[in-house]
Amino acid sequence: MSDNKKWDQYSEYLDLDKVLNAQNPLSDKAGDPAHDEMLFISFHQIYELWFKQILFELDDVQARFSNKNMDEREMQPVLLYLGRIIEILKNLDRMIDVLETMPPQSFIDFREHFGTATGFQSLQFRLIETRLGLLRKDRLKVFHQEFDKDLRNESKMEIKIAENNPSLFEQLDTWLGRTPFVDFGDYKFWEEYRNAVYKLFEEKTALARRNLSGEIFDKELAAIQRGKDKFDSIFDADKHAQASEDGQWRMSWKALQAALFITIYRKEPVLQAPHELLTKIMDIDELLARWRLRHALMTQRMMGLSMGSGGSSGFEYLMSTIGKHRIFTDIFALSTYLMPSRALPKLPESISKEMGYNYAVVS
Amino acid sequence: MSDNKKWDQYSEYLDLDKVLNAQNPLSDKAGDPAHDEMLFISFHQIYELWFKQILFELDDVQARFSNKNMDEREMQPVLLYLGRIIEILKNLDRMIDVLETMPPQSFIDFREHFGTATGFQSLQFRLIETRLGLLRKDRLKVFHQEFDKDLRNESKMEIKIAENNPSLFEQLDTWLGRTPFVDFGDYKFWEEYRNAVYKLFEEKTALARRNLSGEIFDKELAAIQRGKDKFDSIFDADKHAQASEDGQWRMSWKALQAALFITIYRKEPVLQAPHELLTKIMDIDELLARWRLRHALMTQRMMGLSMGSGGSSGFEYLMSTIGKHRIFTDIFALSTYLMPSRALPKLPESISKEMGYNYAVVS
Amino acid sequence: MSDNKKWDQYSEYLDLDKVLNAQNPLSDKAGDPAHDEMLFISFHQIYELWFKQILFELDDVQARFSNKNMDEREMQPVLLYLGRIIEILKNLDRMIDVLETMPPQSFIDFREHFGTATGFQSLQFRLIETRLGLLRKDRLKVFHQEFDKDLRNESKMEIKIAENNPSLFEQLDTWLGRTPFVDFGDYKFWEEYRNAVYKLFEEKTALARRNLSGEIFDKELAAIQRGKDKFDSIFDADKHAQASEDGQWRMSWKALQAALFITIYRKEPVLQAPHELLTKIMDIDELLARWRLRHALMTQRMMGLSMGSGGSSGFEYLMSTIGKHRIFTDIFALSTYLMPSRALPKLPESISKEMGYNYAVVS
Amino acid sequence: MSDNKKWDQYSEYLDLDKVLNAQNPLSDKAGDPAHDEMLFISFHQIYELWFKQILFELDDVQARFSNKNMDEREMQPVLLYLGRIIEILKNLDRMIDVLETMPPQSFIDFREHFGTATGFQSLQFRLIETRLGLLRKDRLKVFHQEFDKDLRNESKMEIKIAENNPSLFEQLDTWLGRTPFVDFGDYKFWEEYRNAVYKLFEEKTALARRNLSGEIFDKELAAIQRGKDKFDSIFDADKHAQASEDGQWRMSWKALQAALFITIYRKEPVLQAPHELLTKIMDIDELLARWRLRHALMTQRMMGLSMGSGGSSGFEYLMSTIGKHRIFTDIFALSTYLMPSRALPKLPESISKEMGYNYAVVS
Repeated sequence: MSDNKKWDQYSEYLDLDKVLNAQNPLSDKAGDPAHDEMLFISFHQIYELWFKQILFELDDVQARFSNKNMDEREMQPVLLYLGRIIEILKNLDRMIDVLETMPPQSFIDFREHFGTATGFQSLQFRLIETRLGLLRKDRLKVFHQEFDKDLRNESKMEIKIAENNPSLFEQLDTWLGRTPFVDFGDYKFWEEYRNAVYKLFEEKTALARRNLSGEIFDKELAAIQRGKDKFDSIFDADKHAQASEDGQWRMSWKALQAALFITIYRKEPVLQAPHELLTKIMDIDELLARWRLRHALMTQRMMGLSMGSGGSSGFEYLMSTIGKHRIFTDIFALSTYLMPSRALPKLPESISKEMGYNYAVVS
Repeated sequence: MSDNKKWDQYSEYLDLDKVLNAQNPLSDKAGDPAHDEMLFISFHQIYELWFKQILFELDDVQARFSNKNMDEREMQPVLLYLGRIIEILKNLDRMIDVLETMPPQSFIDFREHFGTATGFQSLQFRLIETRLGLLRKDRLKVFHQEFDKDLRNESKMEIKIAENNPSLFEQLDTWLGRTPFVDFGDYKFWEEYRNAVYKLFEEKTALARRNLSGEIFDKELAAIQRGKDKFDSIFDADKHAQASEDGQWRMSWKALQAALFITIYRKEPVLQAPHELLTKIMDIDELLARWRLRHALMTQRMMGLSMGSGGSSGFEYLMSTIGKHRIFTDIFALSTYLMPSRALPKLPESISKEMGYNYAVVS
Repeated sequence: MSDNKKWDQYSEYLDLDKVLNAQNPLSDKAGDPAHDEMLFISFHQIYELWFKQILFELDDVQARFSNKNMDEREMQPVLLYLGRIIEILKNLDRMIDVLETMPPQSFIDFREHFGTATGFQSLQFRLIETRLGLLRKDRLKVFHQEFDKDLRNESKMEIKIAENNPSLFEQLDTWLGRTPFVDFGDYKFWEEYRNAVYKLFEEKTALARRNLSGEIFDKELAAIQRGKDKFDSIFDADKHAQASEDGQWRMSWKALQAALFITIYRKEPVLQAPHELLTKIMDIDELLARWRLRHALMTQRMMGLSMGSGGSSGFEYLMSTIGKHRIFTDIFALSTYLMPSRALPKLPESISKEMGYNYAVVS
Repeated sequence: MSDNKKWDQYSEYLDLDKVLNAQNPLSDKAGDPAHDEMLFISFHQIYELWFKQILFELDDVQARFSNKNMDEREMQPVLLYLGRIIEILKNLDRMIDVLETMPPQSFIDFREHFGTATGFQSLQFRLIETRLGLLRKDRLKVFHQEFDKDLRNESKMEIKIAENNPSLFEQLDTWLGRTPFVDFGDYKFWEEYRNAVYKLFEEKTALARRNLSGEIFDKELAAIQRGKDKFDSIFDADKHAQASEDGQWRMSWKALQAALFITIYRKEPVLQAPHELLTKIMDIDELLARWRLRHALMTQRMMGLSMGSGGSSGFEYLMSTIGKHRIFTDIFALSTYLMPSRALPKLPESISKEMGYNYAVVS
């Protein structure tokens, strides 16, 4: 059939009639065409296509985590799709190289036509943040309150649903809390670890006593004491609870212990994938922060200090989100509590065996 | 009006209803859903959006070049939009990092559903190649003949029109040929350059005579002779004509001279933008070649040696295009004919003055 | 001679004996070898090689700017070398992808061996910042004061010299201030621009009067007034002086006017290169900020909240530098004062002619 | 001690005195300084530092593979270090963006000073190729023969040693050949797979018989037959042996079966890391090919068609290496032999259990 030609197959498969006919610059309609508005539109459409893809991958990953008895086979697709989100986020960042070929003057030329519409209003991006675990209460007030009152009902509903479902942060916390080997028969990782930490501090103190004196000795001792105090917020249940209340920790105590366990014993077969998971989660968190900065700098370049409503500019708002809208900082914070390998407690052989493959034990 | 809310403004402006509802995996329809088909579709839609943007920028650039008396003011947007095409091409390459997160097994799972549709069938990409200057006669036969018979009539027409209009290669050739200073009053760049080249060879010969002897001397002399012969294809009108007929040069003799002139005297104000233009054209040519390789490697990874119709695989076809579908190799070839700066003929001051700004002379 | 073989030529030319024998992990010496220390060392050596290259390019660029009557031919190498610095800065950022393959636990394993040495102590990086224009008084106190007392005398001297010489910021300011056409015979750009801005505000007010009423009208009027006030800091000499004193502007009033002039009339031949210059300066400023964030995030990943001396962590210090150690924000701020092209004052033809090439007028 | 200051610690730790004093442009010595030679030198030194790092990581990876009973714990560092090599290779490619800021004329200006030294002469790069598995007999003759006679004795020795030791290709082949589950008790993967393939072809034939007729039917039948023939080179021991002899396969038959097994059942815990390993090996192979192309294009840009000795230019030589110097194409070729998931043989539960973790079975 002449209707069913190959070229048609390709463009029908991709629905190109829709996709390639959705760029309608307002400056054209206004009879004052601005060349660069086309790029501006395509660029943001591509952003939204990538956002949709991120949400699609999150759907799959979160569905797997929602299963209480998630099979270890699931770690393969989980890591694959998180890895894909990482590559997409890298691309969101690099794409800005294209947009920044637009001189600020060109932006001004079409900006007045689209009124107050801004990228802050991307529903999909807001869903991504929420699904990953950004809490409404932790969002900067200034812009979002204003947006909220302008929301369509369906959009409000979509956000509400995302807020009510467990976020990836919460799912990760729960999943970490279930790590079996942290407390396994007689083996108590947390006790072993605390003892090893204290031993290290004792050695340091002894070393100082032997080699130092006077003011330098006092200084070293104070440093060691600060080190010990630091560890209290993870070793002492009450202090951890207090630190959580103060907003220093969001991760549960059990999850935190498991995450350290995984970080330390990452070579054990059963922990290889979990360790990769923690690494990928940090990558995602970093990439979001980096993308926020690029977005902020681009805004500053295009609009300077404008757009302020109530004194704060879009640039300043975006800059604040870099630090304040991060989600998985607890995983980064874990590095505070590491020790040199030589001082780490050895894993009992029986435990290590359980963490290996079945066939290896049998054969 | 409650209908005209900000969030709506954003999504209406970007026509997101269309764009985000155009992903319809065939594996879903076939009742055999394959997770990764969604990525495959979005990915190619994003490709096509970028292709559209490249064509949009080419429209503008080519319209400016179509003006015989192109004002030098036009060089600013020309360089800007070519620079944008460069950034887009970089992005097309990097995007493949996302697609390559797809394991080959996942590709096989949905590939059977879309039959023979392939990326070779992108009309827009074919238009880009044609508009830049790839000639139908230089295309690899194997795949394109087959495609051609499957073309829609409108598509055939679009390609025909692109083929009939001057390509960027041709426009550049004509524009270079008009460079005023290559032959300006008494000043004949080509004579000056040829003399300088010959003088350099004479010096080399004299140096060899003074310092070398025996076999080494003969070898050096042969090398110098080869060097001279090489220059004949640009200094001798007949030999250049012959070389053109043999397919060694596509650029006209006048354009070639102007391009060398620009390369050498690139610091002169009036030549700064033309030199940047030649550089950007080479960047585009390189990026297309690099993208072809990535596309080929991705194809090999996903399909191995399959897809052969008549023995040649998609991978092999794509590999051949890297070398054979290049367009601006003549500009790269120019480097063959450069000399060390110390041996270059100095530009007469009167000429140099003409190439400066008006105010500088007046004031 | 058998001693002078090609392979030797290559490695002698690159002095590989020196370069490839300069990696001496301290953990090896301590008898406690940590695999990843090699990467850590190579990585920072590569950083320092790139830093040296940036300083080398800055030497050249700054020498050209130090010439009061810088010839316009110089713009070609200036833009070339700044473009190179941009590519190097992009690479400094991407290189971190390599270092981040190091798990935090691996870092802890060799960190104790190199004591208090940190990347903050890179003399070359400090010179780059200073040479670009970061002032000692604008540096965050906390870390640098401590470093300063630990400086070698030669290093103190090198920094002192860099501080006493004009920075690129100052050179750019002076150079912009000399732009001839801003005030050219009868033509006063600044008056023209102010008039056009006021006219636009009048039109907006008239439009509001015609179409709006009540509270909405009052709101619009207030917005227009805020817009006018904003422009005062650039139109009113006293207010600009005051704003400079308050630290809002670092750029001189004349430079600021010239930069706006260049931004607006960037298509004029004589302004094409200056416009490219402003763009590249913004690129450099952005890339430095982006690199600071990546550096901060990497530090947080590797060390969590550790390393605090006096309560502030390395991560927090690095995060503060992103906003506070920027140099060319004034150029970004210019976008605040742009108008749509349709409202811009047209350049008188006589002026435009002066800004073109000599030959074009003659012929 | 004033000698032991922090700034000194940093620069001593990195041996910066050596590293930053190893850039000695020959054009300076010749009294004809060429600005861009500094970049050329630093660039290649950085290349060599990265090459050293790649070899350092390969040392570790290959030492682990040399252990016949490699513990599965080792997969964690193996994947980590291969991932690091991938990031380094990405960086080698991107670095060329810096070098390509050098105009060809600048290269000519210092090129004559370093004679015939070229990057082909990098001993470390040659070692990398050899260690990965490029065989001397598969190298393009033209350049390497010439180099070989110019080798220092120590360098000849180093290459000889690398050639005599098992390459990563060979180690991978051996390791794959040991994969336990491919032939496990009663379970014979290869029979299961062959049966499933044949069944799929039968279904296709039946489907064709039912729905097609005439010429179209004949065509489909021929396509199915070609498909079957294709599989013979992996199902039939003799045909695989013949294909190996013909140079179509380099991988052993056992390794090939194991690689397919891993590709298909990649979700099984014990196969997750091996699947990641195959993916990373393909990434490395791709990145080397991409880097070769960039290197070739850069050479063409800088030197055009020059440098030919015996008619072939450096550019043409480098272009040929892209296809001919690849090492792990067999892994890419595997995709030729995949089937849709629905047609794959299910893994017996008892086997699957063996491939899981010990604790999961026990508890």
